Amino acid sequence: MAIIEKENGVTVLHPLGSQTPPRTWRSWLIGRPLQTADAPHQTIGKAIGLAVFASDALSSTAYATQEILFILAVAGTATFGYAFPISIAIVVLMAIVTISYEQTIHAYPNGGGAYIVSRDNLGELPAQIAGAALLTDYILTVSVSVSSGVAQITSAYPMLYDLRVAIAVVMVLFIMLINLRGVKESGITFAIPTYFFLVMMFLTVGVGFFRYLTGSLGTVPNPPELELHGSLQPVTLFLLLHAFSSGTAALTGIEAVSNGIPAFKEPRSHNAGVTLIWMASILGTLFLGITFLTSQIGGIPSETETIISQLSRTIYDGRGFFYLAILSATAVILIMAANTAFADFPRLSALMAADGFLPRQFTYRGSRLVYSRGIIALAIIASLLIVIFQASVNALIPLYAIGVFLSFTLSQTGMARRWRRSGHLAADQTVSEHGSVLQHDARWKLKMVINGFGAVCTTIVMIVFAITKFRDGAYVVIFLIPLLVFSFWSIHRHYRHLAQRLSLRNYSGAPPRHSRHRVILLIGGVHQGTLAALRYAGLLSDDITAVHVSTNPDEAERVRREWEWWGNGIRMVILDSPYRLLLEPLLAYINEIDARRQPNEIITIVVPQFVPRHWWHNLLHTQTAFWLRMVLLFRPGIVITDVPYQIE
Amino acid sequence: MAIIEKENGVTVLHPLGSQTPPRTWRSWLIGRPLQTADAPHQTIGKAIGLAVFASDALSSTAYATQEILFILAVAGTATFGYAFPISIAIVVLMAIVTISYEQTIHAYPNGGGAYIVSRDNLGELPAQIAGAALLTDYILTVSVSVSSGVAQITSAYPMLYDLRVAIAVVMVLFIMLINLRGVKESGITFAIPTYFFLVMMFLTVGVGFFRYLTGSLGTVPNPPELELHGSLQPVTLFLLLHAFSSGTAALTGIEAVSNGIPAFKEPRSHNAGVTLIWMASILGTLFLGITFLTSQIGGIPSETETIISQLSRTIYDGRGFFYLAILSATAVILIMAANTAFADFPRLSALMAADGFLPRQFTYRGSRLVYSRGIIALAIIASLLIVIFQASVNALIPLYAIGVFLSFTLSQTGMARRWRRSGHLAADQTVSEHGSVLQHDARWKLKMVINGFGAVCTTIVMIVFAITKFRDGAYVVIFLIPLLVFSFWSIHRHYRHLAQRLSLRNYSGAPPRHSRHRVILLIGGVHQGTLAALRYAGLLSDDITAVHVSTNPDEAERVRREWEWWGNGIRMVILDSPYRLLLEPLLAYINEIDARRQPNEIITIVVPQFVPRHWWHNLLHTQTAFWLRMVLLFRPGIVITDVPYQIE
Repeated sequence: MAIIEKENGVTVLHPLGSQTPPRTWRSWLIGRPLQTADAPHQTIGKAIGLAVFASDALSSTAYATQEILFILAVAGTATFGYAFPISIAIVVLMAIVTISYEQTIHAYPNGGGAYIVSRDNLGELPAQIAGAALLTDYILTVSVSVSSGVAQITSAYPMLYDLRVAIAVVMVLFIMLINLRGVKESGITFAIPTYFFLVMMFLTVGVGFFRYLTGSLGTVPNPPELELHGSLQPVTLFLLLHAFSSGTAALTGIEAVSNGIPAFKEPRSHNAGVTLIWMASILGTLFLGITFLTSQIGGIPSETETIISQLSRTIYDGRGFFYLAILSATAVILIMAANTAFADFPRLSALMAADGFLPRQFTYRGSRLVYSRGIIALAIIASLLIVIFQASVNALIPLYAIGVFLSFTLSQTGMARRWRRSGHLAADQTVSEHGSVLQHDARWKLKMVINGFGAVCTTIVMIVFAITKFRDGAYVVIFLIPLLVFSFWSIHRHYRHLAQRLSLRNYSGAPPRHSRHRVILLIGGVHQGTLAALRYAGLLSDDITAVHVSTNPDEAERVRREWEWWGNGIRMVILDSPYRLLLEPLLAYINEIDARRQPNEIITIVVPQFVPRHWWHNLLHTQTAFWLRMVLLFRPGIVITDVPYQIE
Repeated sequence: MAIIEKENGVTVLHPLGSQTPPRTWRSWLIGRPLQTADAPHQTIGKAIGLAVFASDALSSTAYATQEILFILAVAGTATFGYAFPISIAIVVLMAIVTISYEQTIHAYPNGGGAYIVSRDNLGELPAQIAGAALLTDYILTVSVSVSSGVAQITSAYPMLYDLRVAIAVVMVLFIMLINLRGVKESGITFAIPTYFFLVMMFLTVGVGFFRYLTGSLGTVPNPPELELHGSLQPVTLFLLLHAFSSGTAALTGIEAVSNGIPAFKEPRSHNAGVTLIWMASILGTLFLGITFLTSQIGGIPSETETIISQLSRTIYDGRGFFYLAILSATAVILIMAANTAFADFPRLSALMAADGFLPRQFTYRGSRLVYSRGIIALAIIASLLIVIFQASVNALIPLYAIGVFLSFTLSQTGMARRWRRSGHLAADQTVSEHGSVLQHDARWKLKMVINGFGAVCTTIVMIVFAITKFRDGAYVVIFLIPLLVFSFWSIHRHYRHLAQRLSLRNYSGAPPRHSRHRVILLIGGVHQGTLAALRYAGLLSDDITAVHVSTNPDEAERVRREWEWWGNGIRMVILDSPYRLLLEPLLAYINEIDARRQPNEIITIVVPQFVPRHWWHNLLHTQTAFWLRMVLLFRPGIVITDVPYQIE
């Protein structure tokens, strides 16, 4: 054990030496432990950044078109022509949000998710609302993406349909494992499938347009049957807005880059900004292309065959090699899209935990320098949702997106307010807060208008979404978010109260020393363990009372006789217990002593506890000390000490 | 709090005063708590004794005949004529066993179950075998009786057939509750149905014989179909012995009285002996009568309609009032027969626990002076068996009876050996052991021959049973009993080892006092809780070291600075933990100190632990102290003390 330094009575030791921890089943599963000092090296460039942070956004092209058609279907297939105009509106919205976020990324080089922006510019309550919205959304990202990925697989292999829930849960656990290994390795793991997906997607859309322009595209052969519940409904504004709301699922994941800036290589803001622009352009292009081609071929929304499957087998004339390639690429990107959430959820929960709004344990970095508890929590909750909703994308979608738009709104409102404050600063004045630097910006009015306009747009979309999808399931989220915010505040109140209570600020110095130390030694019988505890009690104080609870008069008599011989003259109290209770008479006795206690008197209860060789031997003994501890824990000034007596 | 006496420094207190404990949901369910001093009043007379201890034996008339027919059925209905001769053989065996037990009851006025008799006369291993056999059998008594009772109900109301498992489990829990109230009340509860059953059974058999003699009996109308798997088999000796083995289920429960002698009013042996004779006579008469009449009416063994149901509707010409009365009486007696096991299992397990072969907790008398843990354990295991075997009597029977005959054999071998010893005593010599008095008996040779003959008969039956029913399920019990005996011995070894280790016999007196008391104070941060723990540590020793595990260099620096101000000059050690581990560096440090420890030096680790207002707040904190305790529990000479710091 190397002593590192020694000064003013402080010794710094390195007890585990320089050796790395031994290999265990855990290191085999997630890799060998990393030192804290290794942390800064774990960053990524633009190309891998696109794979890690964009898979969520890009993968939504796999289901956004289909969700629009699902809504339009209630008014008949003739309305499917509205899908393309609706998708243009969605892409315009996407552009507005992207430009807004571009400004955020440059203003917040240390990570400018909705939570941080709201906290800095709007205050704690909006920040907690944004936090609740984002955490909900990350969980749904995992559930929706994995479910949709499994739907692609079951489109190609329908006999797997009954196994979809199990497949989806295994996928979630697999992604969890990859993320427990750490961000860099997961970046490489994810880069290959993301780029494979992009290549295949552009190829498919390209071939589709070529065939459309040459007039050889045709329509879906043997399309799935359109399931209609009830009679055809008329085309109303409500219906179109409802379809628009469903399509906004395409926007989910856009904020991922701005949350993840610290994971990028320097210059962070630049790299992240470029990645965001790339991502939005690719996403918009693919989404428009897919929706346009789907309208042309007459694709039908269905639970058993996805739109991507129908599109590909029309473009490639059947279920050949390219069909399987695009479907597996889509399945893999979707399943891996969940990775985006696995990158952001733990980071945000650690941030909120550091602010005291979530349990502190979320700030703990595991052996691989990732926030392991957040990763595990996300995997568990997302798996539960998948099981509850039986891996149905269509059932999960109404819960989704409302949180995204809530966080968009809060983030952009916060940015607008920030530009306004920057405009009021003098030209050379800077304000530094939470690692972001606020300074006068000459174009603050333009920037404020951009973010403000974004905020207005996303607010409207959010309200439209909440109204049109309320009955489909959006109400769950509308009730859930206030509940989460309330929980965060309760946790925060606890930590704040604790900090006040423990604080040494304004602390008047040590109170007078304890004037009397009273030791109560519990004995069940007189044996070597009891005598060991008696010797220990003798170290603590001269004021010792041995207490025996008597449930059996004969035994009490024996204890008394033996104590006279072995008890070193220590006084003994026998508590008569005619109803054969153990704890209750003891508590009554302690209460009595407690009531007559002098100020600054402290009571230590010494419990001899023998430790058997095997843990299961504990089943053969009553655990009095354990229950006593539970009951007395809430009493000030009472300390319980088990004196273990080992039986080797 | 009344002080009762005070002498030689021993004070006897009565902390709960004379008040009875307050009414709780428990006292509402099972009655108000009883004082230990109330125990001797809870005894019963002959009439109630017959109801409590004989319901098991008597109720076996409800299924014994049917089990004989089930076996004979493989050779066709023509063989059913063998049933009556087989039942005569069983009644002869019953008479032999009864006479043997009559001798036991008078020799063991304090309870002479197979366990005690084997322990006194054969040694510990045979006693443990008898204990294992009896405990297994009590459990099966509950499962078989309740299942058969439910079968009577579903014979009358076939639509309840699918609910049979649930009904049976609810019944078991109901009997458990009655038994948790205590033996006297359960005696009265059980007397009425037992006598109702006896009246109805004798009436039915009487009417049956009257109609047989007057030639008006006839055969079963619409008998259930005989289910035959495979082709008819020839009548072999093996088949007849197999049928005989099944029929010996009639003998189960005969030993109950001899186990339960202490529950009888004085003169115990006399009362118990008379009860046994009554019981055996009634049992033999009913069993022969039912088997004879069943052969006459051509009853068919069936899973869906019991023999009792077929017999009654033939005798009473259909499903009228008397049919329902006899069926419900049979159902109730069967379900309540399980009560016999609930009277004996807890008593035997308490006895074995007192001898150190079962966990000591079984000796604990609950608030109603019954061995509540045994009662609850029995209910849980029996319910599990019912669920596993889907409440089928026919599936459970092969597990049953082998344990009974094993205990019969051990008990009677033990008695035979006892008479032999008594013959070798001088006329005025007495030997007292375990509360039974052995003295010279003039007729010891006759008594030895009676018990010896009983032992030989039951040994033969046991071997026949094991062979003929091995494949039906008897093998489970044949493997289970050695396993149980092994477990009992392991438990016993643990307690014996512990007793040796703790014993003060040959103890050389106190070892030298601890020469050095070293206190290690763990600190996560410097706050009021830490300072409270520091003050407490100051009470214990002057040799204090504050230890901080550093997972974050900035925080370690802050702790160090604050400790310089607040630490009262106590030396501090900072343990550097580059892999962010908490426990491991601490353990390495403690190991280091432990290795350099002087003899008789003791180490106390003081852990400040703040106690939140609500238990669930513990989720918001890492439970370092808990894990530390788990890891260090096995180290001699290390005591861990949590100093609670309450946050009110």
